[in-house]
Parts: sequence; structure tokens; C-alpha cells
Amino acid sequence: MNSEAPLLPDWLTHRAAVLPRHPAIVAGGEIVTYRELHGRALRLAGALAEMGAGPGRLVGLLAPNSLAFAETVHAAMQLGAILLPLNLRLTAEELAYQLRDAGAEVLLCTTETADAAAAAATRAGVREPVVLPVEGGAAIAPRETHAPDDVHSIIYTSGTTGSPKGAALTYGNYWASAAGSAFNIGVSPGDRWLACMPLFHVGGLSILLRSVIYGTTAVIHERFEEAAVNRALREDGVSLLSVVPTMLERMLVADDRPFPPSVRCVLVGGGPVSEELLRRAMERGLPVVQTYGLTEAASQVATLAPGDALAHLGSAGKPLVTTEMRVDSPPGEPGEILVRGATVSPGYWRDGRVEPQGGDGWLHTGDIGRLDGEGFLFVLDRRDDLIVSGGENVYPAEVEAALAGHPAVRAAAVVGIPDQRWGQVVAAAVVVEPGFDPGVLDGWLEVRLAPFKRPRRFVAVEELPMTANGKVQRRFVRELFPNG
Amino acid sequence: MNSEAPLLPDWLTHRAAVLPRHPAIVAGGEIVTYRELHGRALRLAGALAEMGAGPGRLVGLLAPNSLAFAETVHAAMQLGAILLPLNLRLTAEELAYQLRDAGAEVLLCTTETADAAAAAATRAGVREPVVLPVEGGAAIAPRETHAPDDVHSIIYTSGTTGSPKGAALTYGNYWASAAGSAFNIGVSPGDRWLACMPLFHVGGLSILLRSVIYGTTAVIHERFEEAAVNRALREDGVSLLSVVPTMLERMLVADDRPFPPSVRCVLVGGGPVSEELLRRAMERGLPVVQTYGLTEAASQVATLAPGDALAHLGSAGKPLVTTEMRVDSPPGEPGEILVRGATVSPGYWRDGRVEPQGGDGWLHTGDIGRLDGEGFLFVLDRRDDLIVSGGENVYPAEVEAALAGHPAVRAAAVVGIPDQRWGQVVAAAVVVEPGFDPGVLDGWLEVRLAPFKRPRRFVAVEELPMTANGKVQRRFVRELFPNG
Repeated sequence: MNSEAPLLPDWLTHRAAVLPRHPAIVAGGEIVTYRELHGRALRLAGALAEMGAGPGRLVGLLAPNSLAFAETVHAAMQLGAILLPLNLRLTAEELAYQLRDAGAEVLLCTTETADAAAAAATRAGVREPVVLPVEGGAAIAPRETHAPDDVHSIIYTSGTTGSPKGAALTYGNYWASAAGSAFNIGVSPGDRWLACMPLFHVGGLSILLRSVIYGTTAVIHERFEEAAVNRALREDGVSLLSVVPTMLERMLVADDRPFPPSVRCVLVGGGPVSEELLRRAMERGLPVVQTYGLTEAASQVATLAPGDALAHLGSAGKPLVTTEMRVDSPPGEPGEILVRGATVSPGYWRDGRVEPQGGDGWLHTGDIGRLDGEGFLFVLDRRDDLIVSGGENVYPAEVEAALAGHPAVRAAAVVGIPDQRWGQVVAAAVVVEPGFDPGVLDGWLEVRLAPFKRPRRFVAVEELPMTANGKVQRRFVRELFPNG
Repeated sequence: MNSEAPLLPDWLTHRAAVLPRHPAIVAGGEIVTYRELHGRALRLAGALAEMGAGPGRLVGLLAPNSLAFAETVHAAMQLGAILLPLNLRLTAEELAYQLRDAGAEVLLCTTETADAAAAAATRAGVREPVVLPVEGGAAIAPRETHAPDDVHSIIYTSGTTGSPKGAALTYGNYWASAAGSAFNIGVSPGDRWLACMPLFHVGGLSILLRSVIYGTTAVIHERFEEAAVNRALREDGVSLLSVVPTMLERMLVADDRPFPPSVRCVLVGGGPVSEELLRRAMERGLPVVQTYGLTEAASQVATLAPGDALAHLGSAGKPLVTTEMRVDSPPGEPGEILVRGATVSPGYWRDGRVEPQGGDGWLHTGDIGRLDGEGFLFVLDRRDDLIVSGGENVYPAEVEAALAGHPAVRAAAVVGIPDQRWGQVVAAAVVVEPGFDPGVLDGWLEVRLAPFKRPRRFVAVEELPMTANGKVQRRFVRELFPNG
């Protein structure tokens, strides 16, 4: 019997043995069974090993949503390597920062991302990227187990300081997250979960991992395209879907037909769903489960079930069974949202290892929330005025730091303003040298920040609105952009 | 963020907060919500604390399947006490052995079991049993978390030596078992799992724990009664059921009506299901999932899905995702079944603590099995000729030891023989003093062994069939009972 911490199985090796003919991945018109996916992952792992990848070493991946992405995730797992999924929208400079900071030795890409990967690799001093698919690898022996504390992947979040940090997520984190989700919205052996949001974010990556943990099917779309998503829900047996509110809106506008009852849950993250959108979704047969999550907790933390949605409009619901959540304030008052449990990252990656966080065992999310009398969470402000634009997190501090780097900028304050297509877009108030045209700042930022982080609007001001103790008052900055 | 092993939530405290109005237990015509069950458990925990029960101390429970049983399970969890569920069919002597061996300080019973509990308590030197329901306890504060390594319950199994041993099962074991089951047969928020087998066995107890982990409903029947089970499947929304093959047979014979599609899985343990029974069950709409499990692995280890059942008749299927399983033999050959993983008990209870098992990290089940070319498990012999009678395990060594205790018995060999109602019943071959009538042995065993362990047939022989190295050859003993 066990005397030490029990190991987790390698999920793909297990599923290939138990469900060899079950579809693992549906992508680009191709259906790949668990046995086939296992074979492909083992061959790719062999090729990666020949390139120097191995246990505990980092494999960077810059690739669009694709079968190749899923194969790489599993190849890294077979090797015991650590995955570094990279955001396609970042600039070469931003990518190079993550590659260097994390210490990636191998970088994989696809033909679509080969130029961007090459530019990033050059800047980072990493060897030339390898373009997927890789041919000719000799399959390695299947991996049987992983320690729950082993790091599975490093996912960068910008954090509150302006310099992105790599959150380390372990096998145990993803396992607990999968269980917490299943014991909330259920899991059925025939489930198909559609990933139309980026797989390089935790929300997408966790769909791949949940599916192999459950032995169900992940359906991968290269990008969100509302007509394709609607078709997948109606014709491809997709039962679960993760989106942000603007995507849900676009799905409902794209046509006016009902959705079949086989769609059993639409998880909507990235902010509350309006009553009007919620009612329209319900009328069309889409059971919307609103969710609050974050990278450092391996995705979902709390969810709001359809039955509670209208009575608790704007709430993100209650925590998963894997997650303790509290608000650091007197009951009913706003305070910082704290999270603890098996889904929570052990810490950020620093100098080739997880930097222990110390503290009180709770993850201090930086997000501000309030619990009502029944324990429903209302998220009032994402951490330090986080801006969510088209499902991407933008941290004002990072944009402000880039602006302040320009010699003619004395001070900058960045906020999110409403946008019909993206939910929010970035806007900046700047204090500049006399005679300087803020319009040229876009060119300055172009090589420094991904497009979704770059301000759509600039306004020059004499001085920024400040509190008595010198903090920018962002709500007054927002008023500088009255029409959104 | 976490720096130590993450805690598990107290599942009932969590569910009472998240699903307060959802039915937790349906029993005896009563529906108890999660909030109500939590309240009852906290009050009973208060009463138990006044009796001296507390963290890490053992609470014995001798009770039929009932709401009171479920409340006691949860009250012990709220206290952090360890549950010792006792088999209703045991004699006072057998019960007293377990109470003494485990070191129980408090014994709970119901009016139905009060006499048996009193007799056992007297023999064990334990204070007078407390009859449920207990009134007037002041509720304790809700428990928030448990360490995954904390012992949840001690369940006695007779083991191979003849003297029962208490397998310690942890919170982590039950959690992993619930996840393994869910990621195999699925879990739906509306599930209702019917427990008509004893809750004092791991198969029944794990239904209660799975249900609270999932936030679903456990339906409790006091005993297996085929008409009541059939009615529950048709009228009470029961979606899941655990039985042994003879129960399935009785359900199908009880009437000839089909079962509704809401019955999504019937787990059948305790031996393979015949092709004929399988086909009849399928025709009537019962999706039979055959399973191999054992107490030391918190119930299920492997299962055979309906779709594989006819092509792999007699197999117990493939392991759950939480469980590694191998057969200690060359491929395709019979050998001992070994099990490892998060569902496996850390060891047996001895002198107030878990006795570490050492060894190679694998649980040596003692059961003999074979894996076919596709990895399907065939269980060939339960450990040391285990006899399974009406869902109860009978270990020949224990019965042989009781027989050998009689002064006129020189030697005894015990086997299971087929029985239409019970699957198997016990039969004994004995070598006795000249002129002694084996018929009187039943009286000798009456106070020593539970009825299901006592031989239904005796045969006196000159000597037992032995191997060259002195082991009884049980297959020749079986031939002494030609008509079963």
C-alpha cells in the first residue's frame, strides 16, 4: 500500500489503453482517437528529445489552435518536459522576454507562426525554432505517471507590477480543476468540449487537459468564428463551450435558430453577462454558466448556475468543491478575493524553479469582490483595474510602463473603455512635453506591445487626477473618454 | 499560494453553502436537503463531542441503512472523528473483536440494533451504546477542511489470515475514488444513486461519500427488496444503482416491464455477470457496468462498459483513471492483481494508528487475474479462495479457524458452492473424532460466526485432499458437494 504521496497517471497513456478508439481531438476536419493521439505524442516526444528537450526542461510553443498544439501539449507530458504556451498576439520583444525569463531551450511553432517565432528566438538568444509537424522522431516509451507537484506548464500573466510573471501550474492543479468542474457542471462520457478561445491561455489549455482526464473529446477551432461555433453546436455534437460575453453575443446575432438540448453548458468568463443577453441565450436554448477564474487557479474558481442566474444578476456564483474562496472584508463589504485549494498554483517561475510564495496559504488575487448574504460572489474590479479586451487581459501598469519609456512622456494612465466588439479597449491619458503629438505614441508602442494592449485612444492632459497619497484615480481618467 | 499539500474541503459544509436546497438524502420517505443534513450532522456531532468523541478518535456504528446512518457518517466528519462501520450480520463476539482491535470509545446504534450493540459493547468493555437519534446536542461549528491523509474510516476485511483486519481509508482515498468513478461513468448534477447494499461496506459507504462530493443525491433503501428497487428506478428518478449479480437477477424476475432511460448505469460487483443475465438486463434497458473492487482500494478498481461487455464476457474491464493496475505475471498469464494509486488505503489500523505497509508501493490484492491482449482484466480467483455469498465476503481461513477450535475437529476445509439465491454458500469438509456428529458444529459456530459465514453443508472425511507440500486442494473439496 502507499506510503508516499500517490502519483497521478499519465492521462493520455491511460486513455489510450482504456479508450483506444474513442475520439480524443476533433480539429480541422480530422478526428484523432486516443490511441492515435498517443502514438503521435510519443513520436513527437522522440523528436523533441533529440533536440534536447527532456524532463523538467521548458518547451516553448507558439502555435494557433490546432491538432499540432494538442500533440505538443501531450508530447511535453510524455517527456516530463514543462510547456510554455506563448500568446500569438505578443510582439517579438514580449515573446523574447518570456522565453528568456522562463529559460526555454526549445521553441516550437507552425508555418503560420514561423516568422514571429524566429524573430522572438533571435531576440531571446534561443536556438532556431522548430516548425511543426516534425517528421521522423522515434517514439519514446509511454509515460505512466507524474508526481502531482510536478510543474506541467508555465503561463505568463502580466501581474500587477507591469512585468509579466510565469505562473507555474502543476499536474495536481489541472487534475483538481478538472474534478472541480466535473462535480459542478457534470461530465458525460460522450461530452465534446469546444475550444474556440486560445489554447495558449489557461481557459483553452484546461479544456484539452480536462478532456483527456475525463476521457472525453476536445473539439478545436482555430479561432472564434460565430457561424462555425453555431454549426458545431448543432451538427458536431458539441456539448460544452467556453466563451466570453462578446462571443456569446455574436453567436446569438449570427442567426436566429434555436440550439439543441445536446448543448448542456456554455461557460462564460471574463465578466458578467447582462440580463438581456442572458435571457436571449436562455430563449435560444443555451444554458449559460457564468464563471470567475484566473490563471493562478488553473481556470474556474466560482460559477453561477443557470437556475441562479436571474435571481443573482451580475454574480459569478459560488466556488467549486476544489476551491476555498473568501473575501478579505467584513461580511457583505467589498474586499480582495482570496482563493485556496488544490487548484491553486504553487508560485511563479523564477530562475528555473517555482518561487515559494510563503504567506498565509491563500492566493491574494488582487481582484475585488463582495459576497452577498447567500454566499454569491460579485466581482467588482479585476485586479488593479484589469482591462479585458476580447478575452485578453491587459494590465494598465504594463501599458503605462511602455508609454513612460518614451522620452517625451512625463506620465501616463491607462484605462479600459467600453467597446461593442471587444467588450473593452484600452485608452490612455498622457502628460507630455510641450508640443509633442501623442499620435506618434502608437508607432512607439508597436514593437513593444501586442495590438490588443495598445491604446485605441489617447488624450493629452495637463496632469493626471491623483488621490491625496499620489495614486492615479482611474475613474476620473475614464471620464476623459465619455463616449467609450 | 500553496506551499504545503492542499487540503480537501469538508464536502458537506461545501455543499450546504453551494447547494443548500438540493436533496442530499432520500430515505424512508423523507427528503433531506444539504442544508438540513448539515444542520443535523452538526447537532449530532455536538452530542457525540459531549460523549467524548473527537478528532482522530473512533466512533463505532452498528446501524441498518437509514438516514441516521448517513447523519452519523457526516457527524463523524464534522468532528474529525474516525468512523468504524460495523457489519450487522456479525455475532457479538465478532463485533467485540473489531471494537477492541480498533479501539472504539463510542458505539452508536439504532433501536433495531440496540440489543446486538449492547451485547458487543459488554464483551468489548466499551461503554453502553448510544441509541440514535440522539436529541439535544448543541451544534458544533462547521468543519471547513480535512487533510487528504487523515483517516476517514476503518473497514474490517477478514484478510487472508483468518483474523479480520481494519483497512484505513482516508479522505484522499474517497476523493480519488469518486473522481475515478465520475471520469468513467460520468456524473450529472441531477444524479440519484441508490444504495440498497449495506452502507457498512465500502460499496455502500462510498455511495454516500461520492454523492456529497458530487453534490448529487443518495437514495437509501434499508435493504435490497427487488420490487422497491424497481419502483425507485421507475418512479424516484434513480439514475445509478450498485448491486451484485443475484440482485440483478431478482430485479429482472420481479416483473417484466422495461426500465426508463433515466437509469444510466447499474454497477454490478462481486463476480462476473453471465451472458444470459447481461442480455436480459440490456433488453430491459439496464446498462450494466461490471466492476472489480475491494475495500482496500475504496471500492471500484476496474469496470467493464456495456459496449465492451458482450465482446469480453466474464471480464471486469479496465482500470479507473485514478488507479494503476497490473498482473504480476508474464503477459496473458494468470498472476496476482496489483493495484496502486490515490484510491489505495495507506495500510491497516493497528494500535491506534495506520501501520505502514512498506513494500513496493503496490497493493497486493491476493486476487488472481489475467489481462487479455487488449488489457481487459479477468478475475480468476478472489484472494485465497474468497467466497462471496449474497454480496458478503467470506474468507475460508476464518471459518476453518472457528471449526478447528472445536475439540472434536481435527481439520477442516471450507469452500464456496454455487447457490441460486446467494451466488455462493459456504460448505465444509471436516476430519473429526470417531463417532462425532458434524451436525452439532452449527451450534458451535452460532455464537462465533455471522450466519452468512456458517456452512450450509458439512461432510465428514477421513482426510483432506492435500498437495505434496501440505496445502489443502480446495478444488477437490468442492467435488465433495457435487450438486452445489
